[in-house]
Amino acid sequence: MSKSVFYHAGCPVCVSAEQDLVDLIGADQVEIVHLGETKNRIAEAEKLGVKSVPALVTPNGHALHINFGASLADVKG
Amino acid sequence: MSKSVFYHAGCPVCVSAEQDLVDLIGADQVEIVHLGETKNRIAEAEKLGVKSVPALVTPNGHALHINFGASLADVKG
Repeated sequence: MSKSVFYHAGCPVCVSAEQDLVDLIGADQVEIVHLGETKNRIAEAEKLGVKSVPALVTPNGHALHINFGASLADVKG
Repeated sequence: MSKSVFYHAGCPVCVSAEQDLVDLIGADQVEIVHLGETKNRIAEAEKLGVKSVPALVTPNGHALHINFGASLADVKG
């Protein structure tokens, strides 16, 4: 994995964090995944260690949970 | 404020998040502040909205709390 992946679910906290991180890291360095709209990627996020959104998974595979928008359980619901 | 500021307290969660974010954002774009060693900057962090460490305050003034290492109350103690 050479890019970071930013998982979110469209909540206000997520959108704000997304803008901040994309500005800092650079839009071409981050893939944005909306788990509310692409629920088939929730399992992938869980496998990478994502427990809540918004979260950033770095190229070295670390899951950084940013503030707290929603748990993955809420996104599934 | 033109740089981001990364506040931490030396805990393992902090150090790991610091390395990840410095790699992503670039070392010259982030000031690193160890609140355990520079307690006189805790008030500054609180004023910027930091509630727990590690946290990244972006150039536009948003406090992004990364994972959860320790509350500021713990750092003060």
